[in-house]
Amino acid sequence: MQLGFVSAILGDLSLEQVLEFARDEGFANVEVMCWPPGGADRRYAGVTHLDATQFTDDDARRVRALLDRTGVAMSGLGYYPNPLDPDAAHRRTVAEHLKKVMTAAQKLGVGVVNTFIGRDPALSAEANWPRVREVWPELVRHAEACGVRLGIENCPMLFSKDEWPGGKNLATTPALWRALFEALPSPSLGLNFDPSHLVWQHIDYVRCVREFGPRIVHFHAKDTRVDADRLYAVGSQGLGWHTAKIPGLGDVDWGALFSALTDAGYRGAVSIEVEDRAFEGSLADRQRALRQSKRYLEQFV
Amino acid sequence: MQLGFVSAILGDLSLEQVLEFARDEGFANVEVMCWPPGGADRRYAGVTHLDATQFTDDDARRVRALLDRTGVAMSGLGYYPNPLDPDAAHRRTVAEHLKKVMTAAQKLGVGVVNTFIGRDPALSAEANWPRVREVWPELVRHAEACGVRLGIENCPMLFSKDEWPGGKNLATTPALWRALFEALPSPSLGLNFDPSHLVWQHIDYVRCVREFGPRIVHFHAKDTRVDADRLYAVGSQGLGWHTAKIPGLGDVDWGALFSALTDAGYRGAVSIEVEDRAFEGSLADRQRALRQSKRYLEQFV
Amino acid sequence: MQLGFVSAILGDLSLEQVLEFARDEGFANVEVMCWPPGGADRRYAGVTHLDATQFTDDDARRVRALLDRTGVAMSGLGYYPNPLDPDAAHRRTVAEHLKKVMTAAQKLGVGVVNTFIGRDPALSAEANWPRVREVWPELVRHAEACGVRLGIENCPMLFSKDEWPGGKNLATTPALWRALFEALPSPSLGLNFDPSHLVWQHIDYVRCVREFGPRIVHFHAKDTRVDADRLYAVGSQGLGWHTAKIPGLGDVDWGALFSALTDAGYRGAVSIEVEDRAFEGSLADRQRALRQSKRYLEQFV
Amino acid sequence: MQLGFVSAILGDLSLEQVLEFARDEGFANVEVMCWPPGGADRRYAGVTHLDATQFTDDDARRVRALLDRTGVAMSGLGYYPNPLDPDAAHRRTVAEHLKKVMTAAQKLGVGVVNTFIGRDPALSAEANWPRVREVWPELVRHAEACGVRLGIENCPMLFSKDEWPGGKNLATTPALWRALFEALPSPSLGLNFDPSHLVWQHIDYVRCVREFGPRIVHFHAKDTRVDADRLYAVGSQGLGWHTAKIPGLGDVDWGALFSALTDAGYRGAVSIEVEDRAFEGSLADRQRALRQSKRYLEQFV
Amino acid sequence: MQLGFVSAILGDLSLEQVLEFARDEGFANVEVMCWPPGGADRRYAGVTHLDATQFTDDDARRVRALLDRTGVAMSGLGYYPNPLDPDAAHRRTVAEHLKKVMTAAQKLGVGVVNTFIGRDPALSAEANWPRVREVWPELVRHAEACGVRLGIENCPMLFSKDEWPGGKNLATTPALWRALFEALPSPSLGLNFDPSHLVWQHIDYVRCVREFGPRIVHFHAKDTRVDADRLYAVGSQGLGWHTAKIPGLGDVDWGALFSALTDAGYRGAVSIEVEDRAFEGSLADRQRALRQSKRYLEQFV
Amino acid sequence: MQLGFVSAILGDLSLEQVLEFARDEGFANVEVMCWPPGGADRRYAGVTHLDATQFTDDDARRVRALLDRTGVAMSGLGYYPNPLDPDAAHRRTVAEHLKKVMTAAQKLGVGVVNTFIGRDPALSAEANWPRVREVWPELVRHAEACGVRLGIENCPMLFSKDEWPGGKNLATTPALWRALFEALPSPSLGLNFDPSHLVWQHIDYVRCVREFGPRIVHFHAKDTRVDADRLYAVGSQGLGWHTAKIPGLGDVDWGALFSALTDAGYRGAVSIEVEDRAFEGSLADRQRALRQSKRYLEQFV
Repeated sequence: MQLGFVSAILGDLSLEQVLEFARDEGFANVEVMCWPPGGADRRYAGVTHLDATQFTDDDARRVRALLDRTGVAMSGLGYYPNPLDPDAAHRRTVAEHLKKVMTAAQKLGVGVVNTFIGRDPALSAEANWPRVREVWPELVRHAEACGVRLGIENCPMLFSKDEWPGGKNLATTPALWRALFEALPSPSLGLNFDPSHLVWQHIDYVRCVREFGPRIVHFHAKDTRVDADRLYAVGSQGLGWHTAKIPGLGDVDWGALFSALTDAGYRGAVSIEVEDRAFEGSLADRQRALRQSKRYLEQFV
Repeated sequence: MQLGFVSAILGDLSLEQVLEFARDEGFANVEVMCWPPGGADRRYAGVTHLDATQFTDDDARRVRALLDRTGVAMSGLGYYPNPLDPDAAHRRTVAEHLKKVMTAAQKLGVGVVNTFIGRDPALSAEANWPRVREVWPELVRHAEACGVRLGIENCPMLFSKDEWPGGKNLATTPALWRALFEALPSPSLGLNFDPSHLVWQHIDYVRCVREFGPRIVHFHAKDTRVDADRLYAVGSQGLGWHTAKIPGLGDVDWGALFSALTDAGYRGAVSIEVEDRAFEGSLADRQRALRQSKRYLEQFV
Repeated sequence: MQLGFVSAILGDLSLEQVLEFARDEGFANVEVMCWPPGGADRRYAGVTHLDATQFTDDDARRVRALLDRTGVAMSGLGYYPNPLDPDAAHRRTVAEHLKKVMTAAQKLGVGVVNTFIGRDPALSAEANWPRVREVWPELVRHAEACGVRLGIENCPMLFSKDEWPGGKNLATTPALWRALFEALPSPSLGLNFDPSHLVWQHIDYVRCVREFGPRIVHFHAKDTRVDADRLYAVGSQGLGWHTAKIPGLGDVDWGALFSALTDAGYRGAVSIEVEDRAFEGSLADRQRALRQSKRYLEQFV
Repeated sequence: MQLGFVSAILGDLSLEQVLEFARDEGFANVEVMCWPPGGADRRYAGVTHLDATQFTDDDARRVRALLDRTGVAMSGLGYYPNPLDPDAAHRRTVAEHLKKVMTAAQKLGVGVVNTFIGRDPALSAEANWPRVREVWPELVRHAEACGVRLGIENCPMLFSKDEWPGGKNLATTPALWRALFEALPSPSLGLNFDPSHLVWQHIDYVRCVREFGPRIVHFHAKDTRVDADRLYAVGSQGLGWHTAKIPGLGDVDWGALFSALTDAGYRGAVSIEVEDRAFEGSLADRQRALRQSKRYLEQFV
Repeated sequence: MQLGFVSAILGDLSLEQVLEFARDEGFANVEVMCWPPGGADRRYAGVTHLDATQFTDDDARRVRALLDRTGVAMSGLGYYPNPLDPDAAHRRTVAEHLKKVMTAAQKLGVGVVNTFIGRDPALSAEANWPRVREVWPELVRHAEACGVRLGIENCPMLFSKDEWPGGKNLATTPALWRALFEALPSPSLGLNFDPSHLVWQHIDYVRCVREFGPRIVHFHAKDTRVDADRLYAVGSQGLGWHTAKIPGLGDVDWGALFSALTDAGYRGAVSIEVEDRAFEGSLADRQRALRQSKRYLEQFV
Repeated sequence: MQLGFVSAILGDLSLEQVLEFARDEGFANVEVMCWPPGGADRRYAGVTHLDATQFTDDDARRVRALLDRTGVAMSGLGYYPNPLDPDAAHRRTVAEHLKKVMTAAQKLGVGVVNTFIGRDPALSAEANWPRVREVWPELVRHAEACGVRLGIENCPMLFSKDEWPGGKNLATTPALWRALFEALPSPSLGLNFDPSHLVWQHIDYVRCVREFGPRIVHFHAKDTRVDADRLYAVGSQGLGWHTAKIPGLGDVDWGALFSALTDAGYRGAVSIEVEDRAFEGSLADRQRALRQSKRYLEQFV
């Protein structure tokens, strides 16, 4: 395993600056954000470190040169929209861009593209299933054609009232992963595994690694902390009782998790994802968050 | 505190038979189900041990004679519909019957009527609030007029897919109880406290008793057990990972709970509510469930 | 489930006295010891409350009359030798008597005979397997012919130095139960489940009930307590660091266990087995142990 | 072991009424309070169910007749003053009365007299030691002469500000018990063991039973509950963060405790001591507390 | 947050050597001990790395030059006497020196002066209060005048018999901090927060950070370990059952603590305080203790 | 304490390469494997980094020069055969080579030789004792003569079926260590303490350090993880339910362990022993395991 980070937290730096920071701090790789240009519609989204909309072979050469010069790898390209958005036009836009990101990954020789399955939050998981079957086969075929594996992050996307009740991503639990891998039986479909989302769903993430280890194609190192006082007030079905933290400052048992990952034979990237509001005051704070997370994780990686 | 039970589990017995069973087994009281005649629309609903639709003074005399003869008290009348149903006609029907149950309680000298706040499950808690303000002031005024206290059970009514996502009862958490008691500041509004629903919401029920003790007007003794394997599969936002059990066979820490209840000065009924499918095979099984629950609880009550 | 006890602890009383004690104290059933007459060769063995060596129809009538008179049932007949003893002659003797016990059970209309699989303690589990295949098919066929189910107790029989290293009973773990039920696929083969032996093997007995519930034909209610100081000294591979206690005075979580048993649909006997040396000073002590165990278990049964 | 209670909680009943209540409720014994007449100087003190000041042989005959008639035993006589009070005159008064209680016990054939060692709360434990050597040898000799064993309760007597900092009883910890038994090496000196005081001193009471089992001559069954919120505020060196409760409503692990007591061979009284303010509203409440405590403890005794 | 250390542990080095060691090992800051010259009256006291008795502007220039040269900051000046000593003359001496330390801090541009509130250990907390009101207003006014914040360490100063029973510092618990901040409502009064003292008082230090975060002006990183065997012997009211250790070798949950500190917005010094006797054999040992503590804490800071 | 490693994991490197790797990575010392040339008879055995069979003074000079050049120390020589093998000829061969290893240590000025006591696995611990008395006095005398201390590793050597039931090393528990140190009362006999073997024997390794601290002459830093699913299947008397892991990826509480070691005054080597199959794919993997283990342990050492 090699330590890296998700580029979204350095959205105010250019790709070159991001890679140079990674090199200077000893990170082996970066997951590069590939939102279409034009800005974010939610926190942590909208960063365009690599513009996949018209990504040419020349662009690929330039980026590869940058990687060669800095010695930093790309662990994956990342684009996390809602491919199952209720609005059909939006779904089409999203699918088109996601395919462009895969094509860019192919040009760059990057083997992983990370994203969400998406979900209509107003519908139950079951009621979203027909749309999965409508949208995803084509996307998976495109991944196969590009020779990339899709890393579906297991984030419920259920943090604020507008995402209630179902959240904006189906791929959140072992039961749903089993269903996905049965419905879309392609080796190109995998998981971008983030333990922080499992902590607050009260799902045993170590057992997940034992069951789904071979499906993990990318890994987000993010922690989360349950706030006992808020949980008391609103209960586990409420919102706002868990807080994203950097690794070591939350409830994840990282030793047990990496123990399972080593036994599962995972040898990919460990990509630090900073969404800890205590470290978002300035660029220096966010860089400090990456540095501290790295120091913490190096004892296990 | 005095041990009793909820009459719903003996739906195939007459009120007289229920009270005689209570007397023979040493129960001090019974919460008597008052659904309108005509049958259930969900499990554990629809039992009519006392028909409140046209409850006359003569009826009241007959029932009181029965109570005198058996020496068993009524801890409350129970009717658990959805007063905030999306269908306005249904809301009106429900409110009318609930008022009749209060009137019957008044005639009988029974001080407590247990029910739900209700909820449109398709809407968020916030979006249900206007309907609370529309429906409940009149009901609370009727309770005040009848001299009864309402025991709102804290059940999320979120067990099956048709109740997803919000469940059919708002009054499920400390935050919502605080909001309710602020919106409806009547001493006639109280809680019918059931710890089993708090277990699976990961809410500290002992702390609830410390905060809301004076609001508890009735108590349902039901236990619940978290199934670790199912929780792993579907996560805490899923359905089906907790099972109602009789007291002592679930995860409630009854010693700590009754310790808090004694300090809170609660002196009302402890009404065993059997919804444990392992004890529903026959009338004898259900009676056994009541007997065993009583033996278990007598060490704390 | 109905509470009873294993008759071995009252070895100085006659069968009639045992049944009368059971009746007087409110026990529903007794597991009756059927060792061949002639005395014990180890603690808790050798009791002959029913002599199966030449058990006639007249004997059966007399015993049934006794049962009718006292209103106490026989939950099973018990004989716990080593059917896989290294000495072939001893193996044959044991097998013959075990078959006679089954025949006696048939005559009495008792559906369960409890015993051990046995083991050559000097050999590994694997090395004992050929002897299982040699000895047990005939015994199982006899059980089928008699219409009785065999309740194999899960006791390792590994408490003293002469039983080291393998103990005298193979049927001790889920892995071995799976192997047994595969090797001897008869519905007549079941488990006489005793949680106390699983505590010190660090085996999750609640999970055992979930997996093997339908195989449980009899249940021994015995507790055990780990002694932390002795475990420190000799480790889990040593002897003497766990002590049999009556239910409630050991480490078994009885609420969780009976919760699983109810869900598994177990409706058989709960037979208290007293092997607690703190209660063996006199007949009165042993009777007190049964009484106290019953009071403890009644909260869960 | 036989269940009984401390008579102090029924201070408004006569000895006869106390014994009749014990008989009616099935208690085997009572620890009878023997304060000198004249009233209490602190809560739970000052009850005179037996006046030892001028206890004659006739008095003894009358009391024994009462015991015979009711069938209730006296588990001990109880008098809990401060024999090491800073005021020398008070010390002498207390010692004289304590000797009279021992003499009364001898006349009655009661083998145990329960009391405190006492302490000058303003001095450290060490600084109290000279006074122990001055006061106690004579008291122990008197106990030996009377053939009674002294049950020193392990209560710190440190609950209110006037008892700060050292409390009014030295005999509170294993280290101090070892010192006492070394300084006063008489078999007449023993412990009246109360686990509730050890809970809040964070002392492992089960280990105490393993070490001091043979020294336990009487046992007080009282529970206590740590209040996490108050402990947070004042810390373990503060006052007011633990509350006496009846057995089953506090933090004592009674199963583990009675398990150790059985192994230690303790066969004396288990005397319920009610100091739970939630059960002190009326005589009926206090009697209910005794009844409920008995039901709870009967599962272990 | 920036890692540093308390200079007391390097009492045999000059200030210059201390700062050079800090620089060489990568520490960002040092809390500099300012006892009046003349030697210690207890372990860890009496170190004079900066003599505040006659601290001139020239002295300040020299020290600032030293700081500039080494690039190490002063996180605070430290002087930990007993300002509420029973001896009035001693109180006056102490107060005078403490004011001089504040003045020196002002000259140096150091914003924090760390100290104790003090206490007459023979008196209860309440009885010390009048002296707080007598001594502290003037000291707080002086701090305001100097523009420094006082960091009151939360150490009970209750480790040895001569400090029994009350210890030599009042400011030990949330209840007392609330009282202090109410009695002395100046923004110049804050806490020098040390979690090690809260561990053995059984006070939830994470909750302390949530409640008092904005009051924390300095932080001592020291750990402590509870010794179960000694706690068993003497109980929580005794002495000697907890041992100061360097961070990572004690019972503090540093991840949870720093998680809370980040959320509380604490951005000050994390000053390692070595009082671990296993690391006091030689200067090299003490330096090793600082190095190892730094490596441990860097995963969280 | 100084971090080093056991050379066995780098069996494909020469001693010089091993020492250079140690130097380059900052390890202070290496335990050097001294099996007789000719290859392994089990995993992790058979490595000959130093051939003790004919180790001359010249050999010693060459090795010391190598140590001087690299600045790496030898924490001990290691040879782990079965000195109590059932085969007498094998026992003699083993004893001869072990003495040669001690002689080589003496020539090198290395103070520790690590090994096993050995055991006939087919016999009980007691039955092995006569052979201990036959074999070991001479070996201990040789150690005394050479001025080396023997570090007996506490490994049960009970991992595979051919080692069942007793394993190949007696020195596994506190009870057996006490017996050994009594039978062989030489200061030259000590422990090579490895906590990983105590985890799965359920022995409190921190308490071991408190009791046997002065006997620890060498320390193996290896971790182990209990696999709950396999433990469920085979129980603690079975095989295969625990897995060796590198430090930080198993169940050892390293903070508590090193806390005890510092208090015990242990100042020797902390020698990382890699037997984690997840890190054995290649030389690079094994070197990575050493590097990562070092980073993990540096927070405590």
